[in-house]
Formats: sequence, C-alpha cells, structure tokens
Amino acid sequence: MTTNLLSPHAATALDAQDELAHFRAQFVIADPSLIYLDGNSLGRLPKRTRALLQDYVDTQWGQRLIRGWNEGWLDLGQRIGGKIGRLIGAQSDEVVVAESTSTNLFKLATAALKARPGRRKIVSDDLNFPSDLYIFQGIIELLDAGHRLEIVRSPDGIHGPVEALAAAIDEDTALVSLSHAAFKSAYSYDMAAVTSLAHQAGALALWDLSHSAGALPIDLNGANADLAVGCTYKYLNGGPGAPAFLYVRRNLQDSLRNPIAGWFSQAAPFDFGLEYQPADGLRRMLTGTPPVLSLAAIEPGVDLLLEAGIDRLRAKSLQQSEFLIALYQDLLQPLGFQLKSPRAATWRGSHISLGHPEGWRINRALIEQMHVLPDFRAPDNIRLGITPLVTSFDEIYQAVERLRIVAAERLYERYPAGRPAVT
Amino acid sequence: MTTNLLSPHAATALDAQDELAHFRAQFVIADPSLIYLDGNSLGRLPKRTRALLQDYVDTQWGQRLIRGWNEGWLDLGQRIGGKIGRLIGAQSDEVVVAESTSTNLFKLATAALKARPGRRKIVSDDLNFPSDLYIFQGIIELLDAGHRLEIVRSPDGIHGPVEALAAAIDEDTALVSLSHAAFKSAYSYDMAAVTSLAHQAGALALWDLSHSAGALPIDLNGANADLAVGCTYKYLNGGPGAPAFLYVRRNLQDSLRNPIAGWFSQAAPFDFGLEYQPADGLRRMLTGTPPVLSLAAIEPGVDLLLEAGIDRLRAKSLQQSEFLIALYQDLLQPLGFQLKSPRAATWRGSHISLGHPEGWRINRALIEQMHVLPDFRAPDNIRLGITPLVTSFDEIYQAVERLRIVAAERLYERYPAGRPAVT
Repeated sequence: MTTNLLSPHAATALDAQDELAHFRAQFVIADPSLIYLDGNSLGRLPKRTRALLQDYVDTQWGQRLIRGWNEGWLDLGQRIGGKIGRLIGAQSDEVVVAESTSTNLFKLATAALKARPGRRKIVSDDLNFPSDLYIFQGIIELLDAGHRLEIVRSPDGIHGPVEALAAAIDEDTALVSLSHAAFKSAYSYDMAAVTSLAHQAGALALWDLSHSAGALPIDLNGANADLAVGCTYKYLNGGPGAPAFLYVRRNLQDSLRNPIAGWFSQAAPFDFGLEYQPADGLRRMLTGTPPVLSLAAIEPGVDLLLEAGIDRLRAKSLQQSEFLIALYQDLLQPLGFQLKSPRAATWRGSHISLGHPEGWRINRALIEQMHVLPDFRAPDNIRLGITPLVTSFDEIYQAVERLRIVAAERLYERYPAGRPAVT
Repeated sequence: MTTNLLSPHAATALDAQDELAHFRAQFVIADPSLIYLDGNSLGRLPKRTRALLQDYVDTQWGQRLIRGWNEGWLDLGQRIGGKIGRLIGAQSDEVVVAESTSTNLFKLATAALKARPGRRKIVSDDLNFPSDLYIFQGIIELLDAGHRLEIVRSPDGIHGPVEALAAAIDEDTALVSLSHAAFKSAYSYDMAAVTSLAHQAGALALWDLSHSAGALPIDLNGANADLAVGCTYKYLNGGPGAPAFLYVRRNLQDSLRNPIAGWFSQAAPFDFGLEYQPADGLRRMLTGTPPVLSLAAIEPGVDLLLEAGIDRLRAKSLQQSEFLIALYQDLLQPLGFQLKSPRAATWRGSHISLGHPEGWRINRALIEQMHVLPDFRAPDNIRLGITPLVTSFDEIYQAVERLRIVAAERLYERYPAGRPAVT
C-alpha cells in the first residue's frame, strides 16, 4: 500500500469513496487552491451561517429590535447548548452556551473547589491548554485559601501521564481538570477511566473539550463526568471567538454556586429585585447578556455535525489520519520530521503534530510559498488539523507532498531563524 | 408655549431645526411607522454595520480564515475601546472591549477589593442595576472574607441618595460602585463629586456607564475615576448582547490583578508557557477569546456618536426630554401619570420614566395597539428612551399623544392585571 500512497491517484480514489465528501459543498470555500488544515483552530464558514446571520442582523436586530429577546434570543444559549449536548453525550438541560471558555472554566472550577471544602489540590497536566492552567493559578491566588495546582508532567510531551495522574489524585484533591484532547499532541484521554480515578478519591472531574467536541465521540454521561467546558470555533465551525459551552451533570447543578452571579443566572431577572437568588438548573451558571450574533452563528455548524453523525466523522478522521501518517513515514520522516502525536489511533484526536528542528521556518514557507495553512505551536510543532466535514484526502496528500518539497529543497532557508512573539 | 406643544406642528418645526436630524438616515428603519423609544435598551442597527458584518463574515472569516487574527482581530477590543474612550473622557489605552458587563464588573470589583486589603465594605445604592448588586453579593460569598455590601436607599426611588452615601463611605470602605445613570429613573450622579467622596475615605470608585455612555458627556479622567464598566448595545448601537467595555485608570493598571486570568491577559500568550504572567497595561484585564462578530459590530455605532459629538447629542437629548416632560404635564399628568425621573436636567440621563398604577397594562396597550415601543420596569415604570441620533420630536409627540389615548380611553382594560415573570 505504501507505494500506492505516493501517487495522487490514491487520494483521488479515497475521495471518490468518501460518503461524507458532499458536506464540503456546505461550506464557503472561496479559494479552492488553499489547503486549509487549521479547522481545529478556526473552523470554516458554513454557507447556512451566512444566510442565518443576515436574518439575525437585518430582520431580528434591524426590524424586530428589542422584541428579539422574547422571540428567541433569551434562551438561545440553552437551545444551542442542547444540540451540542447531543454531540458530547449529555442531556439537553446539561449544556449551555455562554461567555468564553476561560470564563466558563473559572466559574466551574471555582464552584468545584467550593463544593469540596477542606481539599486543597487541583490536579492537571502539562499537556493542558495553558489558559486553563492560568485560570487555575488565578483562582488559587484569588481565594487565598491554601489551594495548590499540581501539574503532572507527560513522559514524552505527547502522551498523557495516566499513571502519574493516578498517583497525584489523592484525598486532598478537590478537582481533576484536563484537556480531553491535548492542543499540541492531540493525545486524548480515556474520559471514563480518569473520571473514575477522580471519583474514587472524592474529587470532581472537569474536562476541557475544546479540541475534541465535534471531532471525537464523547460520552459525558457515560463517563459520569461532573463538569466540562469547550469552545465552539474549532470543530464546531461557530466563527471567530464564538462563545463557549459549559456542561454540569444534572444532579450537581443545584448544589453548585456561580461565582460570577450576573442577572442571567438570577431566578427572576426581570423582577429586578435587589437580592441574588440563583435560578434552578443550569441557568444559574450563566452570567451576563450573551453576544447574540456570535452566539447564533454557532448553530448551523452544530447542525451539520449532527447530520453527518459523530461516528462517521470519527471514522473518516481516523482514515485520513492514518493516511497522513503513512505518507509522513514515507516522505517526511527521512527528512528529519518526527511524529509528535500518538501513533495509536485510540489515543489521538483529529489533528496530527509534526515536529522538525526547523519547524517554525518550514511552517512559514508552507504558508507563504505553498498555499497550505496549518498552524504552529512552540517550540517546533506543525499542527495539521483534519476536519472531516471539509478536508479531502487530496488535500492531505498535497500538504504532505509540499511539506516534503519545503524540507527537501530547503525552501525555508530564506526566512530568519527564530520566531516572533505572536504567531 | 404649552398651547403650541399640543399641536403636531410644534414637533415638525423642532425637527426642521434639528441639526442632527440627518443621522437618522444612517440607521436601518424598516418600519417608519413604529415609534421606537427603547434605544436605551437595544440601539438600532446602523447601516454601516450591515456592510461591515458582511465583510467580517464573508471575507474575513470566510476567506482569510485563521489569518484574521493577525489581520486585526487580536487587538480589535483595544482598538474599539480606544474609540469608546473618546466618548467617556478616557485615554485610548484605558478602555478595552471584552466579555459581558457583569463579567467585567466581577473582574474590576474583585481586583479593587484585593487592592484594599483590610477594608470590608462595598457601598452601592438601590438605584443600581440589580445585576451589579448580584455580582457584588457573589464576590462576597466567594471570597468569604467578611466583606459586606451596603445598599444605600434612595429617598424617593428617583434621586440618588448623595448625603446617605457620603455617610456610608468610611474608612472600612474598599469600593464605591454606582450606576452613573440609573436604569429606572435615569438619575445621573455627579461623578467627580462622588469619586472624591470615595477617594477622601481611601476607597476606589467604580462606575457602571451602561445607561450613560453615548448619551451624556462623561469625563472619567477629569473625575479622577478609578474603574468603570459599561455596555455597548444601548446608546452605542453595538447590537444585541455586544460585548462590554471596561476602563482602568492608567496609573492603576499595573497594580491590579485580574481574577479571571485567561490567556488574553497573559504577557506572551503564544509562547504557551505553563506559568501565568500578567501582561503590562490594560491587556491584563482581558480573559478569553473575544466574540469577533459581535465585537466588530460595535464600531460603526461608536463612529456615528463621535461624528455627531457628545455635546450636540446631549443638547438634543435635553431639548427632547424637556419637550416630552412639557407634553407629559399637559396631557398625561391629569390622567394619573407621574414623572419618575428627576425634573432637573442636571440630574437626568437620556430616558424618561413615567409611572402609572396601570403602567404594565398601559405599556402593553401602547405596544400592541399603538405601535409604540418603550419598555417597562417593575413595578410601574414606562421607560421612554431618547436616542438623539435617531429619535425625532414628532415621535415624542406621537408617543405622548398615544399614551394619552390609551389612558383616557382605557384601552388597557382588555388586558389582564398582573405581569408575566419575563417582560
């Protein structure tokens, strides 16, 4: 098979057999020659979203004006949250869209610490998205109550440190919080197993689904997960900075307090009473007035994922990932590239990270000379995101071939070494 | 003059002399027969915003994709914040747009309490927007450090309790936080005077500008105000739930800690280091990835306000308010209406609240039978918002005349008494 893969015909044949290929036509693809492998950072624009936003702007805001709140805006976050719930194994009243991922994480992590008084430890790992760790560090400083963050180290920077986590989670642990799929390596935890470790110690488990929602089958209920947050602008195609979702297991909802107790979390906000009274259920985890346009834009992408079905999406993602890895082995490994994602599909999300000592310059050459758009994560990771609603096998073939050319012909040498602060 | 006012010709003449009248053509007015007096709750859609959003959706998201972050999205909140600064008497590096008003209030109030260790009191009043009070109550419960909220009572539910505030602000006070213009009565504080009271006691002053930004001249720097938050979807015409702004006086910025320490507040977020290090300056008060579409939609409305000039806007707002009050005295007071805003223009923002024992039913009749859209705030306030970029004198005349008809002919009697939970 490896010989065949080196021919572009192999990719063409795989595309012809792809039962999800027709979903590509649902997205705006202004420049078909651009190979976009960063849908794991910002998903493409669904065509339906353009039409929907026009309705929200021209009709709902422009014509209905303030009446829009009673005509759908007020519970928009709950309604879209319910749909996201179907992607991640949660009930419709367990997920809501509101605020940013970081703010949601602050709310849930703080509520979790308060729900485990006397316990002082938050356990996470060094594969987690740094913003999550910053949020925990901020909470610890804020509460000033002797909490501490234990960042368990991955053995190789690729795989999750499952055994070390098991050792770190103890009777002083209030909260275990991890990225379900790691932003650099795409390592994906066994959610049920780690949640069970947390529960055995009496701790709560909080999952960041930003790099797995819409890409992997997730079963929050089946894993008995307590809490989760996640972003909507990656695999969910919600648009730049679209508001995030949060999940709280139903039988925990009424026992948690929202530290940012704004009026959208109040039992009867339009009574305008002076005393805070939390709403029942998940609404108590809301805070302020939601950004309606950015919120509304999330729905069409979620609908497309539900139509495709998460199992079919995962099957295609794995098939494309294996294709990419096979090409890497033939074409890139000999040139000094390293696979910096797990080799075993079980432990891998939907992107592939490739390391190279000249990663930063190669990435730049790929963008500027080769019309391929991946992204880069320090120190040397080129991330190739596979979004099976859109990505074709031919794009994967072309991306690897062009990576090969950049490295083999040293096309990156025209760029200065080093890397600007913001990429 | 009162006799003349009862003629629609008076309004027509005033409109003919209005030097801001041409701004109305800058807004989408789909149904010119609808009298919209709720721009203080949700401002109308500027025509430029439609075009701008199309560019953000189709070109920036649709075509530029992830590159949008380096092509303007990353500092969009700072850039628009700088423009808002010109409306509220602040420097361009003292205002930023991010998150919701409630979340911003949480961040600044919490940072203020931490900056005044040993002091236990937050002073506010019962004219403040309830969400602000809820946020303070949430912070006090969260910190669990003996803080308390003192809600000073207005003498009449209309005017700010300035003397009682002066008595309440003492050496145990960490923070004084008030709405600059009250959401029900439109009472507007003398910002410099109250800030001075706070400073004399060693406390910080935090202003909620949601009902005054874009409506009143505000001079945060001149008042030596420490902190402020405000919403962008009212007089700023930013669109439903558009993200809020926050202000921190420049020489305070580096001494405050952001409790929600997400990656947008990190010194070098794209280094992806594991240890939180706050950015210098106001960027440290950011948190998560901003909702770009809802954020971008703010700019055209701010531009229009800057073009009109806040002094001219205030002059027209006062002229229209006095016109409305004069009509009220002739036509509505005899029918049992009460003025529930300050009579003196000095103490009044840009909306007028009228109370009536049948306020709820009258409001409903006005909307459903008279094609006038004000809003209602319990227990009995009909709020008539004046947004001088759009509101005409004729609309004010028509609104009062229709209110008169509803009350005089008891058109409200077909509706059941009482009021649903959400209005």
